[in-house]
This record gives sequence, structure tokens and C-alpha cells, in this order.
Amino acid sequence: MPTESGQLGQHISRQFNEDLEHLRQRVLAMGGLVEEQIADAVTALITFDTDAAQAVITRDNQVDAFEVEIDDQCTKTLAKRQPTAGDLRLIVAIMKTITDLERMGDEAEKIARMAVHISENSDPTRPVKQHYGAISHFGDHVRQTLRAALDAFARLDVNSATKAARDERQSDAEYDAIARQVLTYMFENPRNISPGLDVMWSARALERIGDHTRNICEYVVYMVQGKDVRHAASDEDKV
Amino acid sequence: MPTESGQLGQHISRQFNEDLEHLRQRVLAMGGLVEEQIADAVTALITFDTDAAQAVITRDNQVDAFEVEIDDQCTKTLAKRQPTAGDLRLIVAIMKTITDLERMGDEAEKIARMAVHISENSDPTRPVKQHYGAISHFGDHVRQTLRAALDAFARLDVNSATKAARDERQSDAEYDAIARQVLTYMFENPRNISPGLDVMWSARALERIGDHTRNICEYVVYMVQGKDVRHAASDEDKV
Repeated sequence: MPTESGQLGQHISRQFNEDLEHLRQRVLAMGGLVEEQIADAVTALITFDTDAAQAVITRDNQVDAFEVEIDDQCTKTLAKRQPTAGDLRLIVAIMKTITDLERMGDEAEKIARMAVHISENSDPTRPVKQHYGAISHFGDHVRQTLRAALDAFARLDVNSATKAARDERQSDAEYDAIARQVLTYMFENPRNISPGLDVMWSARALERIGDHTRNICEYVVYMVQGKDVRHAASDEDKV
Repeated sequence: MPTESGQLGQHISRQFNEDLEHLRQRVLAMGGLVEEQIADAVTALITFDTDAAQAVITRDNQVDAFEVEIDDQCTKTLAKRQPTAGDLRLIVAIMKTITDLERMGDEAEKIARMAVHISENSDPTRPVKQHYGAISHFGDHVRQTLRAALDAFARLDVNSATKAARDERQSDAEYDAIARQVLTYMFENPRNISPGLDVMWSARALERIGDHTRNICEYVVYMVQGKDVRHAASDEDKV
């Protein structure tokens, strides 16, 4: 752990340390599952694989169960250990992080539902496939940034969190590029409108996953520095 | 306050009671502002009023400031009073509620940005207006359900929260109807695609506001009963 988070390591009891370490591990496990869900949903979409998409939809229950379990443990730890300062911030940040992870899971599920819809309603040889390279690339980027944010979370590393948040901001431009491309495609032929919309919703879902990643980066800064960087007015404070 | 929430009223100090009452008031004030933002954004959209839309965009800072302020007070109250049981749940629920309110504010801001985009890019006499009755109706419904959820929150009333969540579920059908209508409109003429998409994004934003309202209803049940009803598998437990 980096020096600046040293104060988070000193606790009144070893049991409390173990509680925190256990919580941290559970958050990372939940994050890993969400990463997989995103990857699998995008793959199902671009390969027209209904079965894989259905598996993502079913597995969202596991993401939900993680949230309920970790939330419950956080509340119990708050009640039992009554932490203050850095420890309290850590638990508050965990409770916020899992809310964002759960919503990312929902977005992955939406992409999977879109994949089912597209598979059932469009011919795989249709020109909608021309956009899948961009969606796939966008999906990789979004997932890599989430991974970086979770690493920063695990190591309580403010610099990495700030960097991940910066990387994430590029995804807005990526989304805009896809939206423009798909709009042109929709203009070409009314038959393209419906599949074009599916691609747009999927890109939108990926963009929202990116927004949630940025939230997690902000919680890392809050945890370590106790500084609330959400809605920061000055660019210097923005993560 | 209803009987079932009686235990939330007994605290070790009068000061703590005052802290909680203050927090509750601030959440309701934030909720009132968000309600206004939604109403103003929808009105700006359907009246092609760029100035009103800009006012909504500017005012989103106030929503953000509310979130930071209340979150900070919650963390301080947790550290100072170290509440347990119902009091702890109340504060956790407040922290969750303001996150949802803040995101509703973001959705209202998106509608306002869409309003600016439409005003600047389309002729007010264009047929896109045919969908504005439905959007306006949808906006009213979403806002009324939010109001009901906030009332339930204020009175810690589980029955009202459950009812508000049920009402909110109808908005999914309302969204689907608008989407179908707009899709037909987009098919008619390629010139309709771009304004049609703006209407769709706006409807989607309203739908998301409804999702956040449902979250708030769930927090009310959690606060009062200590039962986590998110992702409840049985219909009986679902709010």
C-alpha cells in the first residue's frame, strides 16, 4: 500500500483489519464479475450469439447478490466497529462503489438483451455488422478503464485513479464517433433504423459504464484524501 | 410518523434527533429542486425554449452541491454519533437517496441539452411536435411518482413507498409506447431520424428518472423494516 494511505492501515483491532480486507476482496471479486459480464455481453452482441447473451442475463443475479451481501457487511461493520476518519471513508466508498458496479452489471445485461433482440430480428449478413468493429473496440476500452479503476481501488492509489478517470473521458469522443457513424447508416435506408438504434443503445450502455468507472475513480480519491472531487469546479481537482 | 418507525425516534441525544431532522429536511429540499428541474426541462423541450433549457443546465450545479453537502453531513453524523440499527439505516438510506437524486438531476440536464439541440436544429413547425403530448404526459407521470416517493421517504411510510414503486413500473409501458410511435415516425422520412432520436433520448432519460424513483422507494422499505428489497426474487417482497 502506498504511503499516503498508511493511516488506513492502523486500526483498533485486528478483527477490524480482517473485516476491511474481506470487504476489499469481495469488492474486487464483484468487479471481476462485472468486467466479465461486459466482455461477454459485447462478444455476444457482435457474434450474434443468443446463448451467450442469455448467460449474461442470467448471471446478473450474481452481481445483484454481491451488492446485497457487501452492503449488508458494510452496514454491520459500521454498527459494530463504529469507524471514524479514513476507515469510515473506506466503508462509505465501498458502499458507493458497489452501487456503481451493480449498475454497470445492469448495463451489461441491457447489451445482452440487445444482442438477443438483434440476433432474433436481423440477418447476420446485414450491414449493421459494419459498426461492430467500433463497438468491440469501445467495449475493450471501457473494460480496460474499469480494470484500471479497480486496481487503483485495490491499491488505494490516487494517481492511478486520476489517470483512469482521464482515460475514461476519451470514451465520450468514442461514443460520439459511433453515434455519427450509425446515424449516417440509418439515413441510408429506413430498414437500417431499427438495427441502427440497437447499436446506438449498446454504445450508450458502454458510455454509461464508463461514467460509473469515473465515479469509482472519484471514490478512491475521497477514500485516501478525504476530498470530495465529485462535481469539482476547478480542473485541478477533477479526476 | 407511523408506528412502525417508532424506534427511529428514540435517540441517545436531542442533538442527534436534530441532526437527523436537519438531514431529512435537506433531502426533501434537494428532492424538490430535482422535481422542478425535471418539470422545467420537459417544458423547455416541448416549448422549444432555449433560455429555460439553459437555466436547467446551469441549475444542475445546485443539485450537485446539495449532494456533496448532505453526503458530508451524513459522514460527519456517522463519525460523531456512531448510530446503530434504525438510525444507521436511516443515514445509509439518505446517502443512497441523494446519489439517486443527483443522477435524476443529470438526466434532467440531459433533457435540457436535448431541448437546446432541438431548438437550434429543427423548425418548430416540424412534425416532431406530434410526440410532445406523449413526452409531456410521461414527464408528468415520472414527476408525480417521484413526489410520491419523496412523501413516503418523509413519512417513512412503507405502504406509500410500495405503491409509488408499483405506479412507477407502469412507466416502462409508457416508454415503450413512445418508442414505437417515434420509430414509425422515423421510418416515414429520413429527415425525421435526427429529431426522432432526440425525442427517444428524452423519453429514455425520463425512464431512467423513474428507475431512480424506484430505488428511493426501496430505500424507504430498507430504512423502516431493515429488509433489503432490492433484487427481491419473490414478487411479495418486491416494492
